[in-house]
Amino acid sequence: MPDHAHYLDTFENPQPGHDYTVRLQIQEFTCLCPLTGQPDFARFLVEYVPDRLCVELKSLKLYMSSFRDEGLFHEAITNQILSDFAALLKPRFLRVTADFNIRGGICTQVAVEHRKEGWQCAGPVVLPGET
Amino acid sequence: MPDHAHYLDTFENPQPGHDYTVRLQIQEFTCLCPLTGQPDFARFLVEYVPDRLCVELKSLKLYMSSFRDEGLFHEAITNQILSDFAALLKPRFLRVTADFNIRGGICTQVAVEHRKEGWQCAGPVVLPGET
Amino acid sequence: MPDHAHYLDTFENPQPGHDYTVRLQIQEFTCLCPLTGQPDFARFLVEYVPDRLCVELKSLKLYMSSFRDEGLFHEAITNQILSDFAALLKPRFLRVTADFNIRGGICTQVAVEHRKEGWQCAGPVVLPGET
Amino acid sequence: MPDHAHYLDTFENPQPGHDYTVRLQIQEFTCLCPLTGQPDFARFLVEYVPDRLCVELKSLKLYMSSFRDEGLFHEAITNQILSDFAALLKPRFLRVTADFNIRGGICTQVAVEHRKEGWQCAGPVVLPGET
Amino acid sequence: MPDHAHYLDTFENPQPGHDYTVRLQIQEFTCLCPLTGQPDFARFLVEYVPDRLCVELKSLKLYMSSFRDEGLFHEAITNQILSDFAALLKPRFLRVTADFNIRGGICTQVAVEHRKEGWQCAGPVVLPGET
Amino acid sequence: MPDHAHYLDTFENPQPGHDYTVRLQIQEFTCLCPLTGQPDFARFLVEYVPDRLCVELKSLKLYMSSFRDEGLFHEAITNQILSDFAALLKPRFLRVTADFNIRGGICTQVAVEHRKEGWQCAGPVVLPGET
Amino acid sequence: MPDHAHYLDTFENPQPGHDYTVRLQIQEFTCLCPLTGQPDFARFLVEYVPDRLCVELKSLKLYMSSFRDEGLFHEAITNQILSDFAALLKPRFLRVTADFNIRGGICTQVAVEHRKEGWQCAGPVVLPGET
Amino acid sequence: MPDHAHYLDTFENPQPGHDYTVRLQIQEFTCLCPLTGQPDFARFLVEYVPDRLCVELKSLKLYMSSFRDEGLFHEAITNQILSDFAALLKPRFLRVTADFNIRGGICTQVAVEHRKEGWQCAGPVVLPGET
Amino acid sequence: MPDHAHYLDTFENPQPGHDYTVRLQIQEFTCLCPLTGQPDFARFLVEYVPDRLCVELKSLKLYMSSFRDEGLFHEAITNQILSDFAALLKPRFLRVTADFNIRGGICTQVAVEHRKEGWQCAGPVVLPGET
Amino acid sequence: MPDHAHYLDTFENPQPGHDYTVRLQIQEFTCLCPLTGQPDFARFLVEYVPDRLCVELKSLKLYMSSFRDEGLFHEAITNQILSDFAALLKPRFLRVTADFNIRGGICTQVAVEHRKEGWQCAGPVVLPGET
Repeated sequence: MPDHAHYLDTFENPQPGHDYTVRLQIQEFTCLCPLTGQPDFARFLVEYVPDRLCVELKSLKLYMSSFRDEGLFHEAITNQILSDFAALLKPRFLRVTADFNIRGGICTQVAVEHRKEGWQCAGPVVLPGET
Repeated sequence: MPDHAHYLDTFENPQPGHDYTVRLQIQEFTCLCPLTGQPDFARFLVEYVPDRLCVELKSLKLYMSSFRDEGLFHEAITNQILSDFAALLKPRFLRVTADFNIRGGICTQVAVEHRKEGWQCAGPVVLPGET
Repeated sequence: MPDHAHYLDTFENPQPGHDYTVRLQIQEFTCLCPLTGQPDFARFLVEYVPDRLCVELKSLKLYMSSFRDEGLFHEAITNQILSDFAALLKPRFLRVTADFNIRGGICTQVAVEHRKEGWQCAGPVVLPGET
Repeated sequence: MPDHAHYLDTFENPQPGHDYTVRLQIQEFTCLCPLTGQPDFARFLVEYVPDRLCVELKSLKLYMSSFRDEGLFHEAITNQILSDFAALLKPRFLRVTADFNIRGGICTQVAVEHRKEGWQCAGPVVLPGET
Repeated sequence: MPDHAHYLDTFENPQPGHDYTVRLQIQEFTCLCPLTGQPDFARFLVEYVPDRLCVELKSLKLYMSSFRDEGLFHEAITNQILSDFAALLKPRFLRVTADFNIRGGICTQVAVEHRKEGWQCAGPVVLPGET
Repeated sequence: MPDHAHYLDTFENPQPGHDYTVRLQIQEFTCLCPLTGQPDFARFLVEYVPDRLCVELKSLKLYMSSFRDEGLFHEAITNQILSDFAALLKPRFLRVTADFNIRGGICTQVAVEHRKEGWQCAGPVVLPGET
Repeated sequence: MPDHAHYLDTFENPQPGHDYTVRLQIQEFTCLCPLTGQPDFARFLVEYVPDRLCVELKSLKLYMSSFRDEGLFHEAITNQILSDFAALLKPRFLRVTADFNIRGGICTQVAVEHRKEGWQCAGPVVLPGET
Repeated sequence: MPDHAHYLDTFENPQPGHDYTVRLQIQEFTCLCPLTGQPDFARFLVEYVPDRLCVELKSLKLYMSSFRDEGLFHEAITNQILSDFAALLKPRFLRVTADFNIRGGICTQVAVEHRKEGWQCAGPVVLPGET
Repeated sequence: MPDHAHYLDTFENPQPGHDYTVRLQIQEFTCLCPLTGQPDFARFLVEYVPDRLCVELKSLKLYMSSFRDEGLFHEAITNQILSDFAALLKPRFLRVTADFNIRGGICTQVAVEHRKEGWQCAGPVVLPGET
Repeated sequence: MPDHAHYLDTFENPQPGHDYTVRLQIQEFTCLCPLTGQPDFARFLVEYVPDRLCVELKSLKLYMSSFRDEGLFHEAITNQILSDFAALLKPRFLRVTADFNIRGGICTQVAVEHRKEGWQCAGPVVLPGET
């Protein structure tokens, strides 16, 4: 698979001294079905507690667009996006949720998390957007 | 009762190394009322944390459609679908929620879970779609 | 007060071996105000984890309709319905929530629970419809 | 400040033997801004687990209306309503939430609770209307 | 960066004796993008448990408006507003959530909290507006 | 059929000099199914351009409640309510719309109008609530 | 194609003397795709101004259910339902609107009308539910 | 009845040369029930095509607030507000719509219009906000 | 520009004898911005009154997907789709509405129609989905 | 007042041969109150039937942003934007609708139109977004 991660840029976390949460709702995503080659459409939610680095928005848009001609299963693509962010940002907490458009009367969502070893969420209120 | 489970196909979980959640919203389901023979309509939600296997979407659609001419009580059909998935996928976690259309001014929902022996959810965030 | 509980019928729980939840949303309920004799309208939600018995839907409809000419306070009627279900079904868990129509600019809801002695909910996910 | 609490009437809790919750959504409330004298508008939510007494609805309406010509800050009025209810009902649990209309592009909500000394909520399900 | 905090005024908490929550939904906020100079738009939610001081609403409006011509990153501005409130009010609990308008198909939210050393939330019900 | 119309009271139209519209949304209505005797539930909308008389609200509530024990087809009851209003108010325009609760997966609405001979609606804007 | 129309029963219009409208929202409909044999799902709206006859609701449910095993194109089935109703009821006005579930990212609606020769709608208000 | 109209101020229409529409949604209105003295609550919509004068917003707020202690029937108050605006603004077109809060399960809306003699709406598009 | 129209297939209109309407809501569409090469996303609504031919759904999906790599202005692409349908189907009436995703805080919609020379819509009810 | 119109750019209408509609929803607009200097916020809808020219989107964004520091009444600013578009595009039809945020409990909308002399809308369907 091509290297998509090189599209992503970062900047220094302006407040590394305490935990806070960034939520990025990506409304526009399209890739191809690996079996039929037909387009798939989805929305992604990337939530993270930054450590040293934050992701830059314009580069995030380019990164997400770079899957446009790729044929990938829903479960695989969601896990890959998690891996790319985890490798790049080394965040304290990271969750990627994909919400694929209905096919054959069925909607598919995939959600996957990563936590920095030993990191503990200070309380339930750190992640306000749970629902 | 006929064997519906043979409609279901699986594929290898691309990330068995860590827990993640797949949610499948099945918008179209119909079976028959076991008492009157009249059609019943419902929506199903299948949520699971895969272990070695994931369920293939097209086969899921055929599986759900195979109940079209079956006469079954709400509680029984929801438990059977749980059993079929549990036997096939042996997932770490599985929940099936049925939402039957209103009859006589009453809507019925049935929710049932299965957990692999000894499996512990790493945290509340693994299952983002609770509500 | 008349005996309403005799309207309720039950059937054998098809899966007594594990906990699961049944939610019954009763959209149509009317009784009388005990003070003015004027009609009151409400919606009820009955949620339970069955033990040996489940409630039969048609009988539930007749049971709820049998309050049509009864004059009862909101708090009393909700507690009575809980008692009738608890006595009949002896469920592992039971919750009755009433949602009465607005009167004088005020909406009233009453929620009451019953748990079988010693029963412990296996986890938060057993009751998916909390909100 | 005038005594508003005398508007409130109570009746005997028909089920003091176990905990249950009453939620009262008061859709219509108006008072005056203590600084400008201009009308303020709000909605209130009163939730409580009754002990010996329940509040009577018609008297609640009169009580809420009695603030119509009073000039009070949002934080003060919400706390006073809590105090009046706590003194009168001596409930096991009480929460008052005010939701004031937008002023200068800002909406203000105030939420305050009272618990009877030593009372413990039997479980999360006692208060179904959290969200 | 200019000193925005001087816009904020406070008044004495009328009920310092117990914890309660104030939620301020600021529907109108605009600043500039630090890279392009183009306008950004957002909504802010400020939630706090007051200690000795509450924030005055009119001054809050002026404070939020004072960022109108400032060029700031989403993460930096949310953290600065938290800092200004924490320094001024010294609240028992404080959370600031920013919800920026969509850019390039992506919505960004930032949420950050502050707790007074040693303060413990009495229970989950103190913060009713979580969702 | 019993005489329901005697429940209705009127008062003098305060502005008979020009056309205007009154819309009454009756959220609570129940009668019986003429075939099964089971309860039916509906919402009614009564819209009229008064001539000499307006209908009094409390009497309207009593009138609508008086059908509680009557067994009537949807089409018949809607036409009867139109007739009762037309005979009593002799309005310039009158429309009654009934919206019955779902039965067997089917919702039924019935709408019927009456116009005073020779009356012409001055323009489309006289009846603002068309949709 | 089999004769579905024999499922439909009628009753005498209780008010043939003036025009009024009946709207029947059929929430549950399923047939088969004529090409793939896979299930299709839809909602139908039948609106008519009765002349001498009205359609009986229980028979309407059976009629709609009788297409369950039929393979038909969207355009054909909607036109056939119109024909069956027109032949049976000979209504003054009739409109059938079908709303088929999404397939391949596309939702299909079909709407078709029939008017009795020479009939004129008295005004726009006869059909209140246009939108 | 007291003179409320003196609260209203006007300013010169900046574009008297062509027709355009101003819509004012007044979210907060309270008066008293003329029979019981209890508070009533409503929302008003004032729409007009100005001729020489426009209404000033702050004065409109004071005008609407001036009914706070007045006891008036729904039909009468809506017609009076129309009269006050018509006398003051002499607009080309004016419509006042009142939407009173539910009482006894019934919501009441009143809508009334005024047109300048001989004025003709250039087309349906002049009033875009009909619904 | 490449020839997209060859993707479209037709079938015989099963009811050419009278007018009826087909509405196709295409939820998934993406092309490229002709200036930046960045992806654009939109929804399309195609409404038509068929004459001799109807469009086949699967071919419609392929046709819409064929713009995936094309760089086109919003106004141009909407007009081209109208032209392709008009040339192929020669419908009695055709309308294409595009709804492009927000860019720079602005959403763009384009709507364009075609009528067969001399065709007259029988009445407003032929096109039920106007809003 | 400064010249804002110079921000607007145009391009050639790709289909001047027939009427079609462009709708531009501008979600982000802020200016100043001419009396208090405080920020106002609004949404604008610009709808037009192009003649020779269309408006370019990026320039539209800059044009709308150029009012950021201007103090203008709602009625005046809406009419000015109409004038600027009419002068530049000379469209066959143009409508500008402004929707200002609530102030003192009142929302204000202003709608104004321009038609090219002698132009006639071919039918109601040319403007699909009426509601």
